[in-house]
Formats: sequence, C-alpha cells, structure tokens
Amino acid sequence: MAYIVKNVHTVSDELLEELKLVSVSTASHTLVEMGYRNAYMQGIMPLAFPEGQQSAVGRAVTLRFVPLREDLVKQQYDTLPESPHREALESIMKNDVLVIDTGSHMETGVVGDIFTRRLRYLGGQAIIVDGCVRDLQRIKQVDFPVLARGVHGGAIPRSLMSVGVNEPIRCGGVTVIPGDIILADRDGCVAIPPQCVEEIVKIARAHDELEERWIKMKLDEGASLHTHYPPNAEARLEFEQWKKENGYA
Amino acid sequence: MAYIVKNVHTVSDELLEELKLVSVSTASHTLVEMGYRNAYMQGIMPLAFPEGQQSAVGRAVTLRFVPLREDLVKQQYDTLPESPHREALESIMKNDVLVIDTGSHMETGVVGDIFTRRLRYLGGQAIIVDGCVRDLQRIKQVDFPVLARGVHGGAIPRSLMSVGVNEPIRCGGVTVIPGDIILADRDGCVAIPPQCVEEIVKIARAHDELEERWIKMKLDEGASLHTHYPPNAEARLEFEQWKKENGYA
Amino acid sequence: MAYIVKNVHTVSDELLEELKLVSVSTASHTLVEMGYRNAYMQGIMPLAFPEGQQSAVGRAVTLRFVPLREDLVKQQYDTLPESPHREALESIMKNDVLVIDTGSHMETGVVGDIFTRRLRYLGGQAIIVDGCVRDLQRIKQVDFPVLARGVHGGAIPRSLMSVGVNEPIRCGGVTVIPGDIILADRDGCVAIPPQCVEEIVKIARAHDELEERWIKMKLDEGASLHTHYPPNAEARLEFEQWKKENGYA
Amino acid sequence: MAYIVKNVHTVSDELLEELKLVSVSTASHTLVEMGYRNAYMQGIMPLAFPEGQQSAVGRAVTLRFVPLREDLVKQQYDTLPESPHREALESIMKNDVLVIDTGSHMETGVVGDIFTRRLRYLGGQAIIVDGCVRDLQRIKQVDFPVLARGVHGGAIPRSLMSVGVNEPIRCGGVTVIPGDIILADRDGCVAIPPQCVEEIVKIARAHDELEERWIKMKLDEGASLHTHYPPNAEARLEFEQWKKENGYA
Amino acid sequence: MAYIVKNVHTVSDELLEELKLVSVSTASHTLVEMGYRNAYMQGIMPLAFPEGQQSAVGRAVTLRFVPLREDLVKQQYDTLPESPHREALESIMKNDVLVIDTGSHMETGVVGDIFTRRLRYLGGQAIIVDGCVRDLQRIKQVDFPVLARGVHGGAIPRSLMSVGVNEPIRCGGVTVIPGDIILADRDGCVAIPPQCVEEIVKIARAHDELEERWIKMKLDEGASLHTHYPPNAEARLEFEQWKKENGYA
Amino acid sequence: MAYIVKNVHTVSDELLEELKLVSVSTASHTLVEMGYRNAYMQGIMPLAFPEGQQSAVGRAVTLRFVPLREDLVKQQYDTLPESPHREALESIMKNDVLVIDTGSHMETGVVGDIFTRRLRYLGGQAIIVDGCVRDLQRIKQVDFPVLARGVHGGAIPRSLMSVGVNEPIRCGGVTVIPGDIILADRDGCVAIPPQCVEEIVKIARAHDELEERWIKMKLDEGASLHTHYPPNAEARLEFEQWKKENGYA
Repeated sequence: MAYIVKNVHTVSDELLEELKLVSVSTASHTLVEMGYRNAYMQGIMPLAFPEGQQSAVGRAVTLRFVPLREDLVKQQYDTLPESPHREALESIMKNDVLVIDTGSHMETGVVGDIFTRRLRYLGGQAIIVDGCVRDLQRIKQVDFPVLARGVHGGAIPRSLMSVGVNEPIRCGGVTVIPGDIILADRDGCVAIPPQCVEEIVKIARAHDELEERWIKMKLDEGASLHTHYPPNAEARLEFEQWKKENGYA
Repeated sequence: MAYIVKNVHTVSDELLEELKLVSVSTASHTLVEMGYRNAYMQGIMPLAFPEGQQSAVGRAVTLRFVPLREDLVKQQYDTLPESPHREALESIMKNDVLVIDTGSHMETGVVGDIFTRRLRYLGGQAIIVDGCVRDLQRIKQVDFPVLARGVHGGAIPRSLMSVGVNEPIRCGGVTVIPGDIILADRDGCVAIPPQCVEEIVKIARAHDELEERWIKMKLDEGASLHTHYPPNAEARLEFEQWKKENGYA
Repeated sequence: MAYIVKNVHTVSDELLEELKLVSVSTASHTLVEMGYRNAYMQGIMPLAFPEGQQSAVGRAVTLRFVPLREDLVKQQYDTLPESPHREALESIMKNDVLVIDTGSHMETGVVGDIFTRRLRYLGGQAIIVDGCVRDLQRIKQVDFPVLARGVHGGAIPRSLMSVGVNEPIRCGGVTVIPGDIILADRDGCVAIPPQCVEEIVKIARAHDELEERWIKMKLDEGASLHTHYPPNAEARLEFEQWKKENGYA
Repeated sequence: MAYIVKNVHTVSDELLEELKLVSVSTASHTLVEMGYRNAYMQGIMPLAFPEGQQSAVGRAVTLRFVPLREDLVKQQYDTLPESPHREALESIMKNDVLVIDTGSHMETGVVGDIFTRRLRYLGGQAIIVDGCVRDLQRIKQVDFPVLARGVHGGAIPRSLMSVGVNEPIRCGGVTVIPGDIILADRDGCVAIPPQCVEEIVKIARAHDELEERWIKMKLDEGASLHTHYPPNAEARLEFEQWKKENGYA
Repeated sequence: MAYIVKNVHTVSDELLEELKLVSVSTASHTLVEMGYRNAYMQGIMPLAFPEGQQSAVGRAVTLRFVPLREDLVKQQYDTLPESPHREALESIMKNDVLVIDTGSHMETGVVGDIFTRRLRYLGGQAIIVDGCVRDLQRIKQVDFPVLARGVHGGAIPRSLMSVGVNEPIRCGGVTVIPGDIILADRDGCVAIPPQCVEEIVKIARAHDELEERWIKMKLDEGASLHTHYPPNAEARLEFEQWKKENGYA
Repeated sequence: MAYIVKNVHTVSDELLEELKLVSVSTASHTLVEMGYRNAYMQGIMPLAFPEGQQSAVGRAVTLRFVPLREDLVKQQYDTLPESPHREALESIMKNDVLVIDTGSHMETGVVGDIFTRRLRYLGGQAIIVDGCVRDLQRIKQVDFPVLARGVHGGAIPRSLMSVGVNEPIRCGGVTVIPGDIILADRDGCVAIPPQCVEEIVKIARAHDELEERWIKMKLDEGASLHTHYPPNAEARLEFEQWKKENGYA
C-alpha cells in the first residue's frame, strides 16, 4: 500500500546553489530551532569527498534494501529490468542525491565504484548510505561525495535485496522523504524539508557571513562569551555599527 | 514505487492449523536446511503469551514506522482516516498476524492494550514488533500473543510515524513479505515462505512425533549421541522396528 | 561547583498516594504531551517487585558513581563516614526513592539485599539503578521494588566509587533532579517534575477510569478504532451519555 | 600448538558439595578480594533452572565454536566421530559442567534438549553458553540448569562449527580453564580457580551463616549502616557476644 | 584437545605474488560466489598502511588471547620462553601474516611498534588484530601494514594473556585457520582458503583487467547499467570485439 | 552535596612541560604498572590535532551535561550568567584542559569552533569530549587539539543541558577529577593523578630515550624478542655498556 506522507513543496536549482554555502552544522542547528529535531543523520560520515569541494546538495531519491530472501531474490534476479536498485540508479536526474536504507546492515556493501560512476554521469550530486560501501579505494578515484556508515568487501547478493524506490525511508535515524533536500559536507549530512530551505539559507547567511565573522574577530581580541556569544544588548549595537562600517546590509 | 518481490503462494486455514504443532525451533532449523538462512527473528521474544497456548500461527500483515517528521506527522494526523497504522489494524482478518517494523527503535512503544484488544476481536493471531510495546501489564490481561524487543512507556507520537502497510519489511533481521506465514511460540518467532509450510509440517511431524520421541527414550536408557543422534545405520533399523511395533506409519 | 538547575516545587504525601493509581505508561505519554520528551527511563526494568503491589511512588534522592580511582577510593574508604553511598542510604526518609547513576556500568553490582533492607526500614519506596544489582535472589526475599539494568555478582569496590549525593544525574537516558517524583510499576519507571504531578493525576483519572473503561467495552462490542479511538464527535456524545448514566462526573 | 596456562589443583567431590551452599554473589565478591577481578560471567543468565534447586556446581569441560567455514564444516561432518562438540558431550563425567564459547554469537543456537538430556544422563551438573540455546521450552522440561546469553531457533550448522575441547576459553568476559570450578545459581555464574574453593567456602560460611544473619536481624531492629555494616568495634563485640550466646564457634 | 578442522592445501610464493593484484573487494565477492559467505573481516580496518603499497598478502599464523587470570598470567610470566605471543612472533617466516584473536577486546592494546618491527624483520607481511593496537604513531613509523579494530594505550598485561598459537580463531566474524591466505588492502582484509587462491586470481584478472576497464570506459560514454552491467548479449559481443582489437586474450 | 574524593597534589608548569615528551601509550602502560588500571580514555580520539604538535598537556577542568529537561533548561537559559558550560569555559586558565562528560551522548554536539577559539585564547591546551563535537571543519581551522567520540551537527539545546563544573566525572570509562593532569596525543588521551606525574616522566625518559632507542637498533640488527625485549641479563649488560659509550647517564 502506498505511503501517506509526502512532500508537497519543491526547490529550484538556484536555491540549491545557494544552500551550498551553508554548513551542515548550521543547517542542522537551524532546523532544530525551526522545530525539526531529527535532521542530522547520526553516524553517516563522508568516506569519499572531492578535495576542494565544500559541500554537496540535491533532491533525495530513496532506495530501500531488506535482508535477502532466497526464493525472492532469485525471482528478482530472473527479471532483472525490475530490480529496484537498478531502477533507482537509472532514474537519477541532474541534482539528485541517492539515499539508501539498508537497516544499518554492516555485513555487505551496496555501492561500489561502478554505481558511483554511473550516478555522477547522470548528474547526481552524492550517495548517502545507512550501511556499507565496497571498493572504497576505487570509489575515491571517481572523485564524488559518498557518505556511509562503513566499508565491507561483500556485494549486494551476499545478504540483501532491494525492495522499494522513492518510499519514505530511515537513514542515520532520520526519515528521508523523496524530494527532501540533502546537504552533505565533511561533518556529515542533513535531510531538509523542501519548504525550509529558503529560511535556512536566509538565517545561515546572517549567521555565517556576519555574526560569526564578527564574533570570531572579537574573540581574537579577547571578548568573553558572556558578553559576545550570543551578543548582549551593548555588543549587538557594536555589531550593527560594525556592519554599517563594513558595507553589510 | 511499488515493491517488486512478492509471494505467489497461499496457505489454507487447515494447513495453518497443522503448523501449530510444529515448534519454532524445528521450523527454523528445517528452513535453514531448505536453503532459507534468515527465518528466525533474532531478539523478538514473547512478552505476553496466553498460558496453555502452545503456539500462534497466521498470515503476515506488515506495517512500517519511520522516525516522525514534524511537518508530515501533522499532515498525517490532520487526515486521520489515512493513518497507515490504523489502516493496518482495521484491515486485520481471521488468521492474520500483524508484523511491525520500527527500525528496532527502542525509544517509544507502538502497541498497547487497546490495539491488542482490537486485533484479537478481528480474528488476528499475534502481534510481532521489532521495537517496543507499552502498557505491557494491560496487554497481558488481554491474553493474546505479543512478541517484541522491549518495553517503553511512550506512545507512537513521541518519536515515530507510520508510512506503509503490506510492504516487505525487516523484523528481527528477517525480511517479512505480506502473506508470509508467521509461527510464534515461547522460543520466539519465524517467518515462513508460504510454499514451504507443507514441507515443514511433513518434516516436523516425522522429526517431532517419531525420531525425537524415540531418541529421548533411548537417551534415557543411556544411548550415546555417537550412535543415536543422528541414528547410525544400526540404530535406524532399530528405530524402524520400533515404529512398526508402535503403530507409526 | 554546585549545579544550577533545581526543583522549586514539592509534592504532598497525599498527592503521592493518588499518583499510585496512575500507570507508568499513562504518565509517560501524558508527560510527552505536556512537553517533557524524556521521562521514561529506557531499559531500567523491575527485577524485584512485590506480588500484589501495583506501583511504587516517591521523591528522588540521587546518588552518582564513577569508575574507581585507586588512590581516591582508598582515601574514601579510610574516611568511611563520608562515603557518599552510605550517606545517601542513611539520608533516606519516608516516601523517598533512591535513584543511582553508575554510567550504565554493567561490570559490578551496586545494590544488594542489605542496602535494600535498610532502605525499606527507613521508609524508602523503591531503588532505581542505571546499572546492576547483586544477590538478586536475596533482594527478592526483602519484598521491595528494585529496578535496574541487570545483575552482576561483584560488589562496589570491584570497579566503582560513589562521588555525589543529590546532584542532577542521568538514569536510563533521563535526567533526575533531587525531589523529582518517581513512579515505578511492572512497565518500568518515569521521573516526573513535581509541578506536573497534579495535572498527571487529573488527566490519568479521566483517561484511565472513564475513557479506557468505556472504549474497551465498546471494542469488545466490535467498535472500530476509526470511530472510537480516539472517539469521533458522535462517539464522544455517546460517551458523555454513558458517563451520565453510570454516575461519573 | 597446545596452550600454556593450566590448572594444577583439583577439588574433591566433598568440597564441591560444600560449595553449593555459597551464593554466586558471595563467591564473586570474595574472589575480587582475593585478587581475581574477572570471575563473574557478565550477561550469562539462567534460562532454565530446576525449581527448588539452589545452585549447581561442577568441574569445567570447555568447548569452543568458530564461525563455520563451508569447506571445513563439510570435512568435519564427513568424519563425524571427530566432531569436537560431540566429543565434548560424550566425555562428560559425574560433576562436570560444560562451558561453551561461541564468541557471543547470537545468530544460532548450540544446545537443545537432546544435548541437555544426554549431559544430565552422564552426570553433568550444568551447561553454560556464551551464546544462544534453542528449543528452550523443551530444555525446561529436562529440568536441568542451563545458562546462556539468549535464544535462537537455528541449530549449529546454520553458522558455527566446533574446533576445540578443553582449551582455555572466554565465556561472559571471563577466562575458563578446564578444571575450573563453576558455581551457578539464579544470579548467574562464576568460574573459580580450583585452589581458591576451600578459602571461599570458609569465608562464605563466616559471611553467610553468621554475619549476614546477625546484621539482618540488627537492620530489622533499626541499626544503621554506619555502625553495623561493616560492624564497627563496638558492634563487633556485640556480634561476638551474640555468637557465643547462640552456639556459633 | 587439538582441533579437528585443518587446511590441507598450500600456496606457492609465486601465486601469493599474483594475488597482490586482486582487490579485497573483488576477492571477497568472488568468495561469496564460490560458496564462502564469511571471508571479509568486518570492522578490521587499516590503521597503518605504507604509502604506495597497494596490498599485503601472506599465510596466516594465528594467535589467541583470553582475559587474564591473575594466577595463570603469573605462572605464564614466570616461564617466559613459553609465552604464546612471543612464540608466535618469533615463529614468523617470510610471507607470513600474524592474525590475532582477542575476542574483540577493546580495553587494551596487544601490538605496538616493537612487535611490528620484529615481524617486519622476520619477513612477515602484515598484522591483523581483532582488538586494539597501541602506540599507533610509532607503528606508523615502521611503515608496515597493521589492521585492527581500534587503539588503546594499555599493554597486554593490563587485561589479557595469550593461550594458543596456530589454532583456528575468530577475527572480524571470520574463522581463520593457520595457513589461510590473508589479503589486505585499504578496504580491509579477507581470509582465503588456500585451495581457492588460484581460482580467485583467475576470476579477478578477467574481472579487473578487462571487464571493469571496458565497462568504465562505456559508462564514461553514457552506457546504462541495464545494458552494460552486467553486459547483456549485445554488449558482450561488443566487449569480445573490443578485447580482440586491444590485444587481450 | 559536594563530592568527597579530591586531588591534594598539584603539578608545576615545568613538570607539565616535561610530560609533553611522554607518549600517551607509555604513560598509560606505566600507570597500569603503578596500580592505576583506568587511565586511558577508551574511544576518545583526536578529531583535530595541529600538525607538527606532538602532544597536549594540562590540568583538568571538568564539565558535566545531562539530558535536557524542558522546564529546567528554560530556567537555566533565562539566567544565562549561571549557565555551567559558559562558566566552565570562561574559567579556563593557562595550561588547563577542558574535559566534558555528556554520558557518551551521540545525539548532539557540545563544542564548536567558537568555544574552541575562546578556550585557546584563554590559554587552554585541549578539549576532551566523551560525546560529540559539531562543525569539525571549522574547529580544524582553529588549529587546536580536540578529542571526542564523534561528530553531530546539532548544538547543545537539541538534547543536553550542563549541570556541574569541576565535579568528578566519567570520560571514556575513566574518572577525571579536577586537577588531574591530562596528556593527549594522536593515540588518544590519559588522565594522570597529579602525584604520579613526576614518576611517569622519570620512567618514560628511561624507557623512551634509552631502552626503546637501543632495542630498536638491536631489532634492526636481528635481535630476538626472547633475548632483548625485555632484555635478559646478558643483553642488559650490553645495554649498560652501550649507554656508557654513548654518553647516557
């Protein structure tokens, strides 16, 4: 039976571009303040991330694996065009991110360098796996962001089979709905409800570009957390003055 | 997107009745020998089981929860008739077993005595939860088989929301497909592919009613495992003789 | 340095008495609805609970252990009157509950039958341990509610030392502040901020004595969750009518 | 290559009989005080224990399993007389205890009711498993002490193979050497170096029969832990007096 | 009692050399297809691996630790020449790999830079530890492949003692038999039954040198997984043609 | 109630300077030999460590978090000057190390780059967290030693509140008392009782500067562990001779 919950908002490519300037840490904290407690995916870390690339952003395409059942995996492999994980991969479009739920299964790898290479070709932006990847050395040569829980030498048929594409899934303790916006950097990744992206970009810009810059400057001059983090009334006046003098809106 | 793998066999109520005489342990081991390694659900134990009832058997109806997302659970609760977990419960028919995947979530309970009572009324045979139940004391008063990983005082809205009914799910490290046959007793539970039930009943009958009875008798007379478990050629002759003398086919 | 956060409310013995009629499950769920997500202590289960006693209620006295440091435990044992765990035990007054934080340490027991016996004598109502007890068989003979994570044969000096009494502590993932009200039954236990007790008793009475009784009656007559749990407008009218006819306020 | 460490002491059946009066908790704590930190097996609990039997005592026979290797298990099963786990079982003599190391493997059962029945016939006193048993319901009917970490429906060939008998093994985080004395009761079990048994029996007798009896009496009269547990100089005089008056040595 | 299962095949140094060109990932997957499910050691990762070295290969020498028992470790240390871990280390020959089973013990380190240095001198190829190493910084200076589960500052006498050399052991959930062939690279390591090495080298060569090279080229040209991975009939013809044109056998 | 156990020794800045030459591994092992089993913090690894810096040393200032309680965190945030974690940070003096106990909470970060920057300004030497940091990328830019269990995008208010400064705490399974000396390097960190520092420096100097240097030289010449590690009588003479010839005391 089809799931009930779904995203009704979408996000433009331009807004995705702006989101790239926000850190996972800022987005994660901002979402908590907006009432979304579960956005940061715990334990899903960047195992491969291109040098010089600051972050990866895209729309979630989801894929779900369950432990293989011997009769059904045979049924699945006999009718290859229908294999959900191949469907998911080939369905990837520009600015998609593939998010994979294996049930935190640590006993086989579900993504290797071939899949990664294909995803990059199709315009995908990252792969996120609540589980293991395989052949990490060759994945690294593809120069593409891959986040996962660990590494295992085995491949899918060792113990898993795919059963669903674009369903709501669990990843790192977080629900990911198709169309959620994924933001990943070296601190991990976060699933953002599409309707929140604009607000996050706005808050993060204020936070990252101005406050943080000014506060760090003040800290280097010896300012105390008590007065400057967060700024008290007096410090805030000082900050507004500084903004004016330095050409910030 | 709908899942691919599915059951194509069904099992009659009469065969379900016969399966009740088989132990989870025998069914689990027989399935391994038939090539199904993952049938026993690890860590899902009977928290409530009616005294005097030996086992519970039924057809799997599946239900899947994911961590709640604040905007979507609101969307779900505003349109209550569509809530998947209520749909699942009300869809229960005679000889069904409700199997619930929460991602082994230990931080809230998903089944209490009200749901248990309704399921019993509708002819359900058991509830299996990869996660927690709540209000176990009142569940016990319903006198109905409930197997789960643990207990938590919280209710669904604390941290989960339901997203799918009758999809393939994970439960205790085992894939459960709608229509799988669930067998539960005081040793836990097992998901049986429908096409295997007849064979299991046949093997188990031979195993449980004859071999085991005879071997235990021989053990009590001092027989060694080396000769009698499994029986060597000589012991097997002796066993065939005993069967004839005691009126077994 | 002394902690900052503290309880400013207290609860009368009469209110404690009324709280005994509330189940842990109802209190836990009610607290979530009141905005307290972390009240139920995950994994702390009743290992000993007197037959026929429905629940235990009291004011939290807290005790904290850390891994023993060889020089300091010696310093502590040389000046026995100051040993925090003995201070804590001897400070117990009527309607207190001793709550112990060991850091979920599973490698030694911190409470045995002697401590349990003394606590009962002093009017304590229960012992809650995020860690292990020892000599559970003899604890059971004391006939007193003891909830813990597990059992270990070792005693405190094997690997722990006590360092603080009546500080805020962690127990089962929940913060317990001295003076919090502890409610324990066969489903586990919950820490209730004192100012919430009155409201919980009121809500629980409405919930447990009326709604639940009536809904169960309706379920036994075949009512659907869709219409009766929670009751829709029509069912609610029916319920109000039933209340009037059966003498409930 | 044979192991190096070994026991050089043995214990008489009479001493084993006396050890039955000591609790696991007292033995475990006494061993810590004698300098043996790791004697209590953490997490290995009695899953079956005959009603009315207080404890089980015997000499350790050890058995070690490793994950099955497909070629070698075949080699092993083709030459059945050599299968180590059957060798171990058939080697059991009066007052032996079988202790099994599976590497805390929770994915199959290694002992069922047939093995338990044979062990009882041969005069064994208990089975201790760092791993799972299967068919617990039938094991319970054998009325024999079996301690383990959990239950699994699968049998040995699902994922394990036996490789060694009477080697030093790990069980519950404790090293067990063949010939160690195992003491088990409802609080779990402890491995005792043979040379320590006599001392433990002596200390435990003093502790259990006298001190504990007297202190409990005093606690029921309201004595404080500060003066009576452990007894201070004055209380000790009182205790000596009481001993004389009540006919203890 | 000596173990039963054993390797009967051996592998030449030349074949070991060829195995160095195979990746752990390819070997692991190939073994699953050959019927060996448990070859990849889960969670045992390269903590030190010489820059520029692609992989390490050698014959397993095994070593097993158990938790220290105070009387026996003393007995062992009084007779140092017999200490199994020193025996194991000094027995290392050209193209051996030392594989150590500590029971996944994370509370002390068993290998430091001195042992690593000696092993390298003797011609060893790698050290694999299911447990912790210590002094990782100095190990890195030895420039030698060391794979383990983690790091701990403590040394062996803190909590372990060695008991057996060249027994079957568990490492990363995998059975390792003396004489098994170990292959390690940056993705972890795999234990290969000796009789399988030749086949793996052959399969891997076909897989790694030809298919993978060609498929990656095709993927970079936009080929779909549906047609090219694995290649369908048409793609396979194209591949055979390409092989001929590019001088592959 | 204030804790009982406390440090009575202090350590001079000069001695701290000398301690910087000792490795965590050597200090940890030496402490075990001096009778302190629990000094190395298991699982707390350097996530940021300035290139070229060998180790960090300082006096422990402790800080303890518990799971947030909604009413009390509000009470705390309404009176910001009293917030314990800000008090702790602003109290840092030259050669202090901030050690944070979150109960191994992995569901939010407690230290980011702002706190790290302030601590460095105040003369702090390192931050040690039994829990998570956030914004690790920006922490790395501060070029300051930060050791923790992991990374999480969330900030303190997501799920924690601070309750105590300079109490005894748990960190990585180790008790840390205010004033303990913390030594951290790329192998992790260790808490040293102040009275032990002088002895450790002395032992480590002998160990690191002479023995280790000489033994490594001998190992590179092919010396066996049997004769040279530890050195037997003959090797020790050789070593004393070498010391004299090379100008060591």
